[in-house]
Amino acid sequence: MSGTFMTTPRIFNFSSGPAVLPEPVLEEAQRDLMALPGVGMSVLEISHRSPHFDAILEAAEAELRALAGIPSTHRVLFVQGGASLQFTMVPTNLLAADGTADYLVTGVWSKKAVKEAEKIGRVHVAASTEPDGFVKVPSVRDLALTPGAAYVHMTSNNTIYGTQWHDVPEVGAAPLVSDMSSDILSRPVPVERHGVIYAGAQKNLGPAGVTLLIVREDLLERSSASLPSMLSYRVLAQGASRYNTPPVFGVYLLRLVLCWLRDAGGLTALAARNERKAARLYAEIDRTGFFRGVAEPESRSCMNVTFRVPNQDLDDLFVREAAAAGLDGVKGHRSVGGLRASIYNAMPQAGVDALAQFMREFERTRG
Amino acid sequence: MSGTFMTTPRIFNFSSGPAVLPEPVLEEAQRDLMALPGVGMSVLEISHRSPHFDAILEAAEAELRALAGIPSTHRVLFVQGGASLQFTMVPTNLLAADGTADYLVTGVWSKKAVKEAEKIGRVHVAASTEPDGFVKVPSVRDLALTPGAAYVHMTSNNTIYGTQWHDVPEVGAAPLVSDMSSDILSRPVPVERHGVIYAGAQKNLGPAGVTLLIVREDLLERSSASLPSMLSYRVLAQGASRYNTPPVFGVYLLRLVLCWLRDAGGLTALAARNERKAARLYAEIDRTGFFRGVAEPESRSCMNVTFRVPNQDLDDLFVREAAAAGLDGVKGHRSVGGLRASIYNAMPQAGVDALAQFMREFERTRG
Repeated sequence: MSGTFMTTPRIFNFSSGPAVLPEPVLEEAQRDLMALPGVGMSVLEISHRSPHFDAILEAAEAELRALAGIPSTHRVLFVQGGASLQFTMVPTNLLAADGTADYLVTGVWSKKAVKEAEKIGRVHVAASTEPDGFVKVPSVRDLALTPGAAYVHMTSNNTIYGTQWHDVPEVGAAPLVSDMSSDILSRPVPVERHGVIYAGAQKNLGPAGVTLLIVREDLLERSSASLPSMLSYRVLAQGASRYNTPPVFGVYLLRLVLCWLRDAGGLTALAARNERKAARLYAEIDRTGFFRGVAEPESRSCMNVTFRVPNQDLDDLFVREAAAAGLDGVKGHRSVGGLRASIYNAMPQAGVDALAQFMREFERTRG
Repeated sequence: MSGTFMTTPRIFNFSSGPAVLPEPVLEEAQRDLMALPGVGMSVLEISHRSPHFDAILEAAEAELRALAGIPSTHRVLFVQGGASLQFTMVPTNLLAADGTADYLVTGVWSKKAVKEAEKIGRVHVAASTEPDGFVKVPSVRDLALTPGAAYVHMTSNNTIYGTQWHDVPEVGAAPLVSDMSSDILSRPVPVERHGVIYAGAQKNLGPAGVTLLIVREDLLERSSASLPSMLSYRVLAQGASRYNTPPVFGVYLLRLVLCWLRDAGGLTALAARNERKAARLYAEIDRTGFFRGVAEPESRSCMNVTFRVPNQDLDDLFVREAAAAGLDGVKGHRSVGGLRASIYNAMPQAGVDALAQFMREFERTRG
């Protein structure tokens, strides 16, 4: 059978997440939405215990391991609940009653992680850039780490302020736990130096509703048998992402994104591309002083470019006129205001070029 | 723009969940997958804080309230984690340290609910049909309810055994909590008699990865302030399904299913249709004695029709030959074996007719 469909023209989506997805991924998902080839059922309908889903899950994990260089010491799980549920699950699984967890606080999301962890056990803030308004990440020299900490928690990229750790900090023997929701697979990362990596999919990996969890196998022993099953890393690992019904469509789409990332040359090529895209916007921001960057230059993010224009009225005008020009979602987070362009893996260079061009023109007419 | 696509012929999917979806729903989702009309972005890409998603969420709730007759005393939430996470969240939110929760045990899923609740607080099994092999639901006369119970938990339909409560049991003043994952919106139900209704979407409502939660507003006060935010009914209700990023696509598709249910005549019409479909299969099971029904007749489910053939070899042959005839997923649950046809709302009469015809032919050639 064949069919025809009408599509609406697409615009450039600079939203911080859920965010733009690669067009070839959407096209394949659209083509096969009524029935997967050779299966006769939609991926939205197949059983999570079917060989069809087994194949999708295995392929997703294999692609991910190859792309990100995940060693055999680490388990890969697809779960639900977003990074916000991990704020609770990390301490629930890893922080014993007599332990202390260190947190590196670099913004709203790491503060939320602290708040949830404090409900579970003892937390020590080992560094915070809150006094600086979160416009930078801490210097590795400034970490006041607890000897024998249960783990050290960090947020690798901070969407709201547009800051990013450019190196993985050295934290000694404690497992490093990193919330990579907003920069996962945007660049090569030494996975082996992490105890846990988690990431909501909706920025760089796929649609909202699936969360990637990478856990070093030996840490699974820390999950107490008295934990609720759905909150236990050990139970979820034993169930191999199918302790209960997983978000099948999310995993399917994530797998398509992983194939696209591979075809795009892998993480080294993507990192270069992401740096090029970010550099284009930062150059425009720094060109004359009309725009001002929010983050300190050495902490600038390649994923979320935050900036301001001389006054609030111009902020609003910029957002409105950009949207009218097909550049959607450049409004800053409601907690800080200003402007923000989120340029994840799937944002094409053409979108960045269009925004840079729009900025130049906006400055010319309003500057 | 317009495009063409090839589609694979669809088969009949009798899987217990994830399960068949209405074809018009899949067709609309396919048509709009690259970009929602007038939006220019895929529903897989839109922000959960955008007016586009506001409209989807509001429409989903309004459709649901109208279809199911949900009174203004009850909140409607879309969450993640499936019914399995609710096994923990129900006692976490509703069962105080000095309270007792009553459970009506009618199968594997209610046993799992008990097991998770016992990790949180005191549980009393007020009825169990386990001694009968779960082939029926309890008689209302046999409930040993605790005076002043924190709540009474039940499972309205039992997918594995093919049993279903045909009336909502009278449980006095305690809030009734019902896991309706496998028969939600298959028939009219007095929502006002429930404290909490929850249901994973992947059988009657939509794709895996979104969970419907209906909570009587006054029960939100029971959520302790010390609960993890993502496990707190009160926090989730305050966030109006957007405390964190919700499964946007799942809610979108669920809304399309709700519109389809409305267009199909609403729950009274659907109940009649579902009874007719089930009656067709039970009549075939009872016709000669070649097939045997698993559930006792007065507890038979309209959603999951469980049956056996004279021996295990024929079971396997039935499954294989049915699949070859385009009737997929009729294998019984791995814990009980036998055969099972799941015939949720979206299973068309044509699928049921084809299965009944196949059963007749199978009996003629193998009986």
